[in-house]
Parts: sequence; structure tokens; C-alpha cells
Amino acid sequence: MSAPIIAIDAMGGDFGPRCIVPASIPALTEFPSLHLVLVGQSSSIESILAQHAGVDPSRLRIVHAAETIGMDERPAQVLRGKPDSSMRVALDLVRSGQAHACVSAGNTGALMALSRYVLKTLPGIDRPAMVTVIPTERGSCYLLDLGANVDCSAEHLYQFAVMGAVAAELQGIERPRVALLNIGVEDIKGNQQVKLAASLLQQAEGLNYIGYVEGDGLYRGEADVVVCDGFVGNILLKSSEGLASMISAKMEALFKQSLASRLAGSLALPLLRRLQGELAPSRHNGASFLGLQGIVVKSHGSADADGFLSAIRRALLEVEKDMPQRLHERLEHLLL
Amino acid sequence: MSAPIIAIDAMGGDFGPRCIVPASIPALTEFPSLHLVLVGQSSSIESILAQHAGVDPSRLRIVHAAETIGMDERPAQVLRGKPDSSMRVALDLVRSGQAHACVSAGNTGALMALSRYVLKTLPGIDRPAMVTVIPTERGSCYLLDLGANVDCSAEHLYQFAVMGAVAAELQGIERPRVALLNIGVEDIKGNQQVKLAASLLQQAEGLNYIGYVEGDGLYRGEADVVVCDGFVGNILLKSSEGLASMISAKMEALFKQSLASRLAGSLALPLLRRLQGELAPSRHNGASFLGLQGIVVKSHGSADADGFLSAIRRALLEVEKDMPQRLHERLEHLLL
Repeated sequence: MSAPIIAIDAMGGDFGPRCIVPASIPALTEFPSLHLVLVGQSSSIESILAQHAGVDPSRLRIVHAAETIGMDERPAQVLRGKPDSSMRVALDLVRSGQAHACVSAGNTGALMALSRYVLKTLPGIDRPAMVTVIPTERGSCYLLDLGANVDCSAEHLYQFAVMGAVAAELQGIERPRVALLNIGVEDIKGNQQVKLAASLLQQAEGLNYIGYVEGDGLYRGEADVVVCDGFVGNILLKSSEGLASMISAKMEALFKQSLASRLAGSLALPLLRRLQGELAPSRHNGASFLGLQGIVVKSHGSADADGFLSAIRRALLEVEKDMPQRLHERLEHLLL
Repeated sequence: MSAPIIAIDAMGGDFGPRCIVPASIPALTEFPSLHLVLVGQSSSIESILAQHAGVDPSRLRIVHAAETIGMDERPAQVLRGKPDSSMRVALDLVRSGQAHACVSAGNTGALMALSRYVLKTLPGIDRPAMVTVIPTERGSCYLLDLGANVDCSAEHLYQFAVMGAVAAELQGIERPRVALLNIGVEDIKGNQQVKLAASLLQQAEGLNYIGYVEGDGLYRGEADVVVCDGFVGNILLKSSEGLASMISAKMEALFKQSLASRLAGSLALPLLRRLQGELAPSRHNGASFLGLQGIVVKSHGSADADGFLSAIRRALLEVEKDMPQRLHERLEHLLL
């Protein structure tokens, strides 16, 4: 393939270009063929870039966009009222083929709405889903949706299951075990949407559907792909982040109590911090929007430079795998 | 008050009377005024009791019930088809005033259905809710519903909020901060039920409603009472249990790697285990059914003797506080 080009929404996130621009530059070093397009207020971006020596100008382009989307703006307002936002212009670059992917740390709802509007969904997909990878006792699992779709029908959950399976396959997992997240493993458990989605999935040939998993089964590694609506997925992800932080904080307090415990802490804390990072995957790795005719990766609004760089890596991986095309091919076989 | 009497469903749980009976006996030592009624197959109960010397027969009564409810039986079947189950007979003892509370480790759905049928809900309460206490960075919080009510209207969530607040007040928390669990703290976030419940709660005088909390805010201790539907609450609780177990397992593996790390582990593991226990509150402490005209505590199906004893303690506390009456008085002022 040609050199990958990633469009960066330089104005997104809680800290805007002063975080996003410096966070993007190391990607050029890490990936020698990568090109970046920084989209946003060109004067702001240029003044930040001027503080960073040694950036190869042939691999970094600035595209001006006059407007910025606030973190609390409603998606509908953004769609109607901000045709020249950095997020919108970055997505336009993907649609027109001038970039292979878009990475943004901006307003999630606006990014989802604009992505759907600008890029459109793949045939057979009603709504894109947000997916990320979380650690389990045995390895890791794909969890979706993470909050893009608050209310989901059985058909939506079915489509998420198919997309999650394909994403896992592209990462090298053979016949990924696909499960629906539920409050019990018996057939009678769950709400109407989950039960209906289960009956759709039982009939799906070519999918390794294994049934329901519960919240604890997810972390025991019972499935490779776990499907739920965006309300549940978001609560699960954020409560896991919060719990991991709480455990770290309590352990750190314990480890400060004596010299012996400080020694113990010097051993245990690095592991705890790593786990905490893994358990804040949206913060750490970004989340992919699956089901679009293009690649969009959402970095956490409060991501630090490492987190934003991880999101760029994720986008680059999807570019290399040609995720939307592979997804499209598999969907044609798998969707009812 | 007179000596408290607790009816124990001796046949419930994954291990039945051979776990429940020995787990109940220590309560008689811990609480010298307590009386227990063990309900179930009298021959089984008697043969297990025969192995335990020194039980005061004046404080332990057996009531025979011919039927046992399986962990996978449907509530509707149980309601119609098993008039003489241990669970039903234990609840009948509460209704008739022969016991002050019922504790069961049996089928949750059946216990909820039978509790509603036998005891009825308090005026103004459509559905009882399951509540437990979970640890936070600052202390603890009441989380409800935990799975008894899969689909909830805004009115149900409102009633849960009121009941959770009263439960927290009875535990000595002044003006407990009540929050709705949501996927963002902005007004536009969430599903229809949550948004409607928020508007009901904003109008409620006498409730310290503080707005939305997210999954991470819950563990940061932003609220004393966190309200959600039973699907979300169950997923949150079980995924937290699973995550705490996973972190413990990873830490234990780390601590086995060397002599130095084994020393570190000897310090850190007791704390981790305690946290793991606190984070499996339904397993550890039992969950109360709030909103009934009587006291019912559900112990986890796979609870060990300590867990079941904790559920008895919980029931006894509610007996001492006269929870249903206090709840009824507060509800009269708080419900619309």
C-alpha cells in the first residue's frame, strides 16, 4: 500500500492542540512511512510546532479548520451548525481519500454523528459501535458497544457481535468466542433485546457464538468478544477503571506505612499501575468506531500523550489491515 | 422489642442444608437473644444438627417444608407449582409474625417473586429492589437495583432512589447524596428512563439528589446512594467481583516469583483478599430486598459459611432498626 496518512483532529480533547500536537509528533519517528495531517486552527498548530525541532515537513501537513467542537456540544447542533470544524474537516479528508484514517480526542457523540454523516455505515450496519480491548485472566477480550449506542435493538446487538468477531479475527484470533453480556447464563435471564439477540446469534452460521457471559465471566476470560448495549458497556468500562484506581490507591496507602511495606510496594506498584493502565483502555488505547466506510479512532478526552499515541497506533493497524474492506467482506457472508 | 426470630430457608443455595445449617448455628452464639427457625426437609436438617453439639434447642426450631426450589426454576412455575417450598414457608412465617425476617441463599428470581406475593410491597412501591453496600475510595455506597428488576421505568428508578436514601439514613448517614448512574454527567446523556428519573428526582423535596455519577465516580465515592436498573447494577457488581479476583490472581502470581516478592506478597495479599471480599458484597454480605412489608435478605447462592452469617447479621440489623416501618414512614413523605 501507499504510505499511510492519518488525519488528526488537533483541536479535540480536554487540552486541545497543546496536548494533541506534541503527542502526535513521536508517531512520525516510530513509523517512518507515516504521514500526518493536523487539522485545526493553523496559527495555533504552527506556534506549537515551532517549539518542536526536527519535524520532517514533508510528512506533516496542516489543514486549517476555523471551528472547534466543544466537549459538551450536542451532536445535532454540531451536524447543523459547524460545517468547518476540525473534526468534520478531518473526516472529510478520510472520505475524499486524502487520509486513510481519522483520530480524534474530541466530543464522542459529535464524532459518532459526524462519522456516520460523512463516511456512512457499511451495508447491513445500522449503527457503528465503539470497541476496545480489555484484559482478562486468560488474555484479553473485545468489548462493544462502549457508549455510542445507548438503546440497542436485538438486530443492533447482532451486528455488534458480527463486527466484534471480525475485529478479533483481524487481530489473529481464530474462531473468536462471541458472547452476549447478561445477568445470568440461563436462557430465561435478561431483557427482551438480549434474549432476541441470542436467538439471532444461535442461527448465525460462521459465528462461534457461545451464549451468555456474566460480568465476572468476562474477566475470567470466558469469551473473546463480549457484546452489550452502549449504556451497559460504558458503565462496565468506567466502573472497572474506577475500581482499578481505587485498588491502586488503597495498596499505595498500605505500602507507605513502613519500611518493609515500602519495599513490598516497590515490587507491587509497577504491576498495579500497569493493570490500571490496561483497565483504562479507552484512556490508554483509544476505541475504534466499527461499521463505518472509513477508519475512525476515538482517543479519550483526557488522554495524555502516551494515550493519544496509542490511538494513532490503533488507527495505523486498522489501515494496514484494511479493516473496513475486510469487515465489509465478512459482513456480506454473516449478516442475515 | 421481643427476642428477634429469623426464618432461614435451609434448603437454598448451591450447597443446600449441609452448608446453610452449619453456617446458621454460630449466629446463636454471636447474638444471645436471637432465635432461628430452620425451614426445609426436617429429616435432613435434624441429621446435620445432630453433628453439632451444644445448640440450645429452645432457640432453634425446625419447620418442615416438603419442597425445595431449584436454582434454575422459573419464578412463575414456583409461584404456581410449589406451595410448600422451604422458601415459601419461611416467608409465610414472616407474614404471620412468627419470624421477623427471612434469609435465603436460594434462587433470586423465585425469592423476589415469592416475597412480593407473600409479603406485598409497601404503599407507593411497585417493585422491591435489591441493595447492597460496596466500598469506595472515601468509604462505601449503597447500590441498587442489583438484578431483581431488569427493565425499569423512571418511576421505578425514583422509588429505588427514595428507598436507597432511607436505607442509608438508617445506617447513620445524614442527608445521603443520591445519584443516578449514567454514562456522562451532562444533562443530555443517558437513556429516556434515566433522564425522566432525573427530572423526578430534581423535584423531590427532602432528598439530597446530586445528579448523575459515572462508573468511575461511583468508586471515587461521589455519592452515598447510586441508583440504576437491575441489568446495569448486576453487570456492574459482577464485573467488579471478577475484576477484583483477576487483580488478586495477577498479584499472587507476581508475588510467587522470588523470595523477595514472596515477602512483599505476605504483606499485600491480606489486603487484596479483604478488598476482594468487600468487592464481592453480594457474596460477602448478602443483599436486602427493599420495599416489602417484611424483611428479606438474599445471601449469595455460592456463599460460604461466613457469607451466610453476614446475611443473617444484615437481617438482624434491619429487624433492630425496624426497616420496613421506618421506610414506610419516610416513603409517605417522599413519594409523589
